[in-house]
Amino acid sequence: MKHLSWRLGLGAALVVWYIFAVAMPGDPQTTSAIHGFSRTRVEKEFQLEQKLQAIPDPAHAESNLRHLTSEPHMAGTEASHRVAEWLLAQYRSFGFDAEIVTYSAWLPQPREIKLELVAPQKLALASPEQPVDGDPDTLDQRVGPAFNSYSPSGEITAPVVYVNYGLRADYRELESLGVSVEGKIVIARYGRGFRGIKAKIAEEHKAAALIVYSDPEDDGYVLGDTYPRGPWRPLSGIQRGSVMYTEIYPGDPLDSDAATSPNAKRFPAATASDLPHIPTMPISAKDAAVILASLGGQHVPRGWQGGLAFTYHIGPGDVQAHMKLVIDYAPRPVYDVIAKLHGTDDDEWVVLGNHHDAWVFGAADPGSGTTTMLETARAMGELARSGWKPRRTIVMCEWDAEEPGLIGSTEWVEANGPELQAKAVAYINADVAVTGPNFTASATPSLKELIREVTREVPDPATGSTVYQAWFDHAGRPQEPAPALPRQPSGPDPPNEVPIGNLGAGSDFCPFFDHAGVPSIDLGFEGDYGVYHSLYDDFYWMKHFGDPTFVYHAALARVIGTLALRLDEADILPYDYATYANDIARATTRAVAHAAQVPGEDSTLRPITEAAAQLMESASRESQALRATSIQSLGPAKIAEVNRTLSSVEQALLTPEGLFGRPWYKHTVFAPGSYAGYAAEMLPGINESLDRNDLSALRIEVDSLAAALLRAAARLDEVSRLTQPSGDSSPLSGH
Amino acid sequence: MKHLSWRLGLGAALVVWYIFAVAMPGDPQTTSAIHGFSRTRVEKEFQLEQKLQAIPDPAHAESNLRHLTSEPHMAGTEASHRVAEWLLAQYRSFGFDAEIVTYSAWLPQPREIKLELVAPQKLALASPEQPVDGDPDTLDQRVGPAFNSYSPSGEITAPVVYVNYGLRADYRELESLGVSVEGKIVIARYGRGFRGIKAKIAEEHKAAALIVYSDPEDDGYVLGDTYPRGPWRPLSGIQRGSVMYTEIYPGDPLDSDAATSPNAKRFPAATASDLPHIPTMPISAKDAAVILASLGGQHVPRGWQGGLAFTYHIGPGDVQAHMKLVIDYAPRPVYDVIAKLHGTDDDEWVVLGNHHDAWVFGAADPGSGTTTMLETARAMGELARSGWKPRRTIVMCEWDAEEPGLIGSTEWVEANGPELQAKAVAYINADVAVTGPNFTASATPSLKELIREVTREVPDPATGSTVYQAWFDHAGRPQEPAPALPRQPSGPDPPNEVPIGNLGAGSDFCPFFDHAGVPSIDLGFEGDYGVYHSLYDDFYWMKHFGDPTFVYHAALARVIGTLALRLDEADILPYDYATYANDIARATTRAVAHAAQVPGEDSTLRPITEAAAQLMESASRESQALRATSIQSLGPAKIAEVNRTLSSVEQALLTPEGLFGRPWYKHTVFAPGSYAGYAAEMLPGINESLDRNDLSALRIEVDSLAAALLRAAARLDEVSRLTQPSGDSSPLSGH
Repeated sequence: MKHLSWRLGLGAALVVWYIFAVAMPGDPQTTSAIHGFSRTRVEKEFQLEQKLQAIPDPAHAESNLRHLTSEPHMAGTEASHRVAEWLLAQYRSFGFDAEIVTYSAWLPQPREIKLELVAPQKLALASPEQPVDGDPDTLDQRVGPAFNSYSPSGEITAPVVYVNYGLRADYRELESLGVSVEGKIVIARYGRGFRGIKAKIAEEHKAAALIVYSDPEDDGYVLGDTYPRGPWRPLSGIQRGSVMYTEIYPGDPLDSDAATSPNAKRFPAATASDLPHIPTMPISAKDAAVILASLGGQHVPRGWQGGLAFTYHIGPGDVQAHMKLVIDYAPRPVYDVIAKLHGTDDDEWVVLGNHHDAWVFGAADPGSGTTTMLETARAMGELARSGWKPRRTIVMCEWDAEEPGLIGSTEWVEANGPELQAKAVAYINADVAVTGPNFTASATPSLKELIREVTREVPDPATGSTVYQAWFDHAGRPQEPAPALPRQPSGPDPPNEVPIGNLGAGSDFCPFFDHAGVPSIDLGFEGDYGVYHSLYDDFYWMKHFGDPTFVYHAALARVIGTLALRLDEADILPYDYATYANDIARATTRAVAHAAQVPGEDSTLRPITEAAAQLMESASRESQALRATSIQSLGPAKIAEVNRTLSSVEQALLTPEGLFGRPWYKHTVFAPGSYAGYAAEMLPGINESLDRNDLSALRIEVDSLAAALLRAAARLDEVSRLTQPSGDSSPLSGH
Repeated sequence: MKHLSWRLGLGAALVVWYIFAVAMPGDPQTTSAIHGFSRTRVEKEFQLEQKLQAIPDPAHAESNLRHLTSEPHMAGTEASHRVAEWLLAQYRSFGFDAEIVTYSAWLPQPREIKLELVAPQKLALASPEQPVDGDPDTLDQRVGPAFNSYSPSGEITAPVVYVNYGLRADYRELESLGVSVEGKIVIARYGRGFRGIKAKIAEEHKAAALIVYSDPEDDGYVLGDTYPRGPWRPLSGIQRGSVMYTEIYPGDPLDSDAATSPNAKRFPAATASDLPHIPTMPISAKDAAVILASLGGQHVPRGWQGGLAFTYHIGPGDVQAHMKLVIDYAPRPVYDVIAKLHGTDDDEWVVLGNHHDAWVFGAADPGSGTTTMLETARAMGELARSGWKPRRTIVMCEWDAEEPGLIGSTEWVEANGPELQAKAVAYINADVAVTGPNFTASATPSLKELIREVTREVPDPATGSTVYQAWFDHAGRPQEPAPALPRQPSGPDPPNEVPIGNLGAGSDFCPFFDHAGVPSIDLGFEGDYGVYHSLYDDFYWMKHFGDPTFVYHAALARVIGTLALRLDEADILPYDYATYANDIARATTRAVAHAAQVPGEDSTLRPITEAAAQLMESASRESQALRATSIQSLGPAKIAEVNRTLSSVEQALLTPEGLFGRPWYKHTVFAPGSYAGYAAEMLPGINESLDRNDLSALRIEVDSLAAALLRAAARLDEVSRLTQPSGDSSPLSGH
């Protein structure tokens, strides 16, 4: 203890004290049996949840998914519009007040996607995905060519170099082997990072173009049987996808910070900092094998060999490829469906969402989520019909143009920023929502305990126990090796608990959480899923592998519905800021260890260590205060004020200037990593300044984070003050 | 310390004391600059070694290897006889007293080796290895079909089941999945154990037949370029090899314990406990792919997927294979070449050896060793011609019929047992001696330090520093993670030292060490080598990959020659029993931990813990006594007695009854593992009784080991007594 405090300062000592003395076990915020509910309302809430849980139905889910996957419906096409209209009708039929909100965004249509080997021999590549027996959808003539959205058009003939996953460490390895990629076409395998990051890094290393392919080791036959025999990617399967630099900003690339109407002023594409500049295209393992097997040059380093049936080489040898991409970018309509079930209090919103646009048929991505949301909405509609009126307004959103770059959600969040921040108490996202039987979730730390609580109330389809128990049995804490310092991908979960990740990027929670500071959740059931972003992510796949009986769709609708009801009906919103403060304090400790590797930077981080300690104290006091409070005695006005304050704590963690080099990202505690892509980075400003060895940026980020933590602490102090027994209204003593 | 002695008893406490107080650093046995030499002889010895080291010549090695690999020369063929005659002439030309010693042994000739898929479709397999461009030897019409020696003949049609590596854990996994192999043809990949063990385990699980194949993940394209582009196994390459249960006994299977003459009485094959009973054959990855890709049944467990380009299944589904093996077994001649360079003292022998029979051309296995031995012999012959006479007799052996089951060496050791045990001070083996640039060695613990010492005197061909330094840079201690208790494959090497393994099985040191107790060494230079036991292990392979300039052959001849000179010329033989006792004590500690997992067995091992402690004390006293002794003052008779005693310590560790179930194996401290095959097991009687949970056998093995350790200790005490200054001839006080 002494030793620790000597090394890490007072703040760290407080972390240790806090973790052992205060944060365990989880402290309920109220004295009732469910967090946030006064005792008298618990029974009724359980009854309401039971009623809701009886409604979702696998047969409904199946029939909805069959409809949603009946034609390819990429964003910017008329098919996507048809899906939006159908969803609108569905929500209206459930009794929601629904509308289509249309934006215009700079969207691609592929015109010519061509790749050929020109040396050592001429061979046409970029072959389409092969139809499979028994699955008529794979014969659909409306399926377009696979491409990477936001790749520029271009034509290039150049030697080819294999760059493994195309991450920064891979290029360092190439450099150490004396291989330059300048002017070359690089070929990278998918995996271990967002494809847009691969494009950015390739561009940074002066590659002329990028090919990304799906190696059988990563989602194909090495892992298990391939479609249609199994759920994994067949040799001809192609992963489409966006290469927009969404880690800079998502949404319409030509308008980085405001809602976009057809007539809005846009800046030119050349100045958009989230657009890649080198042509990029995805290909199948089958096409990649032709290129990779022909490569000369050195044998690849350890770990670069994939699952194809030959020895991988770096290249180039005499291999030359010719790539030609003609992609037509233009402002095209984006159709969001926004459906509201108005509550008694229309000034507080529980927001739920998923996108509806798909790369092809999109059974798992996004159909499983859309279908689940529809069942959740249908259940709520039925409750409303039977006399229930939500306490807060339920807002269900079906986003368009998520695939090209989270466009529908981002534009809506940007357009409705102040109202959303004033009203939204949470955002629940369910994108690739069902691909198998294993429950999984990522969330803001303040809502992690709520997820565990709710999954204890929903039956697991396979085992007959609860979703929570099956989740624990599959993913419980003991299986996870402790991650090494100084970074940790997810927050520290309580011992013997199921792990819940932090929110990274890759779906529509991003604008809500990272930009607007709305406490967010992303969740689903996952399994073996190798057909991501391919032709084969279709109804037949779901019916044979993902969820053949649709019971997990129904179970997820129950989980989401129950989560929404808790957030909707709670007297005091059930945030857990003790866990949040704890996670931040641990991240701070890791950042200190990270900084210790940079000479002379041992004291720079003191402001954040101190602020994190302050936040822990405030959170501890707040949770104790809420636990000691009789909700009834507070009265409606004070309850509203407490809730307003509680739901603004996440926003207190935003910084108006945003992060270094990417001002759209406002959250000081979480962001997608600048070179990780999907994965969440904690204290991104601090850690990325340290990575860049940019000490002047570091000082700014330290001040900005410390200020954010103190703002959050002040709001929690305000909650403690508001919930003081009325006889004692003295302000809290300072620390 | 207290805690340890409480748990493990006095013996273990002594181990700990010993390790920290006595055994480090290595204690020289004499006060001269090289172990075992009186000061006055050191300079002369170095000069002699320098002279020897100047002789080995890459060009000679290359021309010898070209000759040795000019035709396929399997044991039992006239070609093998031709090689023996040529070797005889070589040794005679170097001035050795050489002869061919002929034995007769039950040896195979393949007549019909057939494999076909009969369902789901008919397809002929067992295809021969393909010729490769540029390597005319691969077109040689004399190459016979690939087979497994000592597989019985047989014909079977049955469903096929994939069993991964075919080890016991693999069958346990199959059992847990509800898959029975009874009556099936099992297909196992090569690797992680001797193929004879795979046959034994398959038989124990009632499989009808066994197919072994080379998976590209284990020695093919997954590791690097395949022949002829690189050194790894091409798709059509087949690993031939014996499936004799050599871990029961090697040598002629029909005569388990005496030399075999054409007229000797043999027992019938059916009663030979070292012969497998199910047909077994090796195939290429290419043929295996046809079978494996057709298998139905469950997807394989984690870790069973190999490097072929499809998802592996356990089978059988509707796959049926038809195997037909006709192998002609008969007594056939075995031609050992035994060449002596007589020393002043013909009653002490330094024995060196390697086999000369090959599966096909045998460039690396055994040609590289044979070639190296020839260069060593030529160098010694030249020294002798220039006036040097060895102090002890140099015996160089070229064994026949190693490949089918260490037959030439075993028969010779059995035939010459008493003389060999009386005279041999060491056996040095160099089988697959050169496959690349990385020095490697296994040895009895008493000779490990000698190997390090000698490699410090020989230049490394690539770096210009010493073989030792290059070895250290490549394989030095820090790279090795500490193996987990309770087993450890090799003895504990000093910290920051190169690791030297223990002797397992798989080459001709086995009868010398495990059966006769001759202190042994096995060594070579290794590298990427995927053509083991295939057509492609030929001259072209060596010239392009193994050792293109033959400098490692010459370097190894220098190392072996210098080792031999040290052992030959030493005044006091340079054994290091302190290390040996240390290794045994540590193995004892691990066995105690192993026994602790068996309830009620915590005290059973006390006799060996105490005996190991006694051995450590004796070894410590012996090494101190030798260090304090002036060799000159001892006089020739006492020196001879000391050496006789020192070289008998390894034999003191033999037990006349041999190990449980395999009486041919006499060594109580080392044996090839009964279910490991190649790898050495320390304290095999103890650990295997514990594995079998056979407590009555355990008690017998404990007594037998304890007695052996005390015998060894007594011999070391005798050395201490003999080297006492003559004024003090009181016997050593007991402990």
